[in-house]
Amino acid sequence: MKDLPLAKVCQLLEPGPVVLLTTTRKGRANVMAMSWHMMVEFEPPLIACIVSNADYSFAALKATKECVIALPALELASKVVGIGNCSGRDVDKFERFGLTPAPAERVAPPLVAECFANLECRVVDTHLVNKFNLFVLEVLKAWSGPAQKNPKTIHHRGYGSFAVDGELIKLKSRMP
Amino acid sequence: MKDLPLAKVCQLLEPGPVVLLTTTRKGRANVMAMSWHMMVEFEPPLIACIVSNADYSFAALKATKECVIALPALELASKVVGIGNCSGRDVDKFERFGLTPAPAERVAPPLVAECFANLECRVVDTHLVNKFNLFVLEVLKAWSGPAQKNPKTIHHRGYGSFAVDGELIKLKSRMP
Repeated sequence: MKDLPLAKVCQLLEPGPVVLLTTTRKGRANVMAMSWHMMVEFEPPLIACIVSNADYSFAALKATKECVIALPALELASKVVGIGNCSGRDVDKFERFGLTPAPAERVAPPLVAECFANLECRVVDTHLVNKFNLFVLEVLKAWSGPAQKNPKTIHHRGYGSFAVDGELIKLKSRMP
Repeated sequence: MKDLPLAKVCQLLEPGPVVLLTTTRKGRANVMAMSWHMMVEFEPPLIACIVSNADYSFAALKATKECVIALPALELASKVVGIGNCSGRDVDKFERFGLTPAPAERVAPPLVAECFANLECRVVDTHLVNKFNLFVLEVLKAWSGPAQKNPKTIHHRGYGSFAVDGELIKLKSRMP
């Protein structure tokens, strides 16, 4: 994997892809699928996300204040849905879905080697955790690769329906 | 336009499309482009979004606590980028871009008639406005139509590059 400049993180998350979120608690890593996230600031990159208190990952994220956001491409779609359909309470999801945990540099939760980018994050604001399950994260370190050519992300439309990235268009904009 | 059940709002926003956000202050309507938003709760639908305090819309949203989120399809892409490249401080964007403001039912800001869905919203939480420009909105009323067949949304990748919705895939998921 290669360093990804932190200023480029917004280009990964702003388009709204389904992502994976890993946590580690008491030495045990877990992974969930997540679509409710958004950019909050460009650099250092801040991200808000909702992790339901019904999710097994909630307690780990709240207690350890660390996670990794990993970006899966289309090829992982069926695994992503499988990950969303079961709980780390019952199963080791890395093992069940054949995903490879790789050591992160700044946080305890693992990177996901099969994803085309990984973001090591720390929780920096918990004001809205109790009310809305809303965490604000800072990206401490970002990785791209192993190289995947033009990875297509998937966008959840509910009940397992996903729009895959299609045509790319380019318009003249001054917005980063 | 037709009523859209509030339970379906998440299917519109969760995939991460660029949206338009309208506000009205002192009798004057304005519209901005926005990509930093996420679902917070299914029903009643709650949405979090970032409206920068550098945006002209920020003061209007903070003061009036009302907005409309409108969903543009691919055909509006060049107007969406144009809207993002200028400020309501300087120009009447509805007039410049030939968009039709239509009266909303529950809020003062207008619907955008050219969009395929419109969400009337009220600000319900401002705890993170000063720190992160983060507003939490409740959708009070949602509209679909005028009918557009399979509207394709656009997803910003930075500097005017957008991924258009491509192939739709369906996997077995229990997640709404």
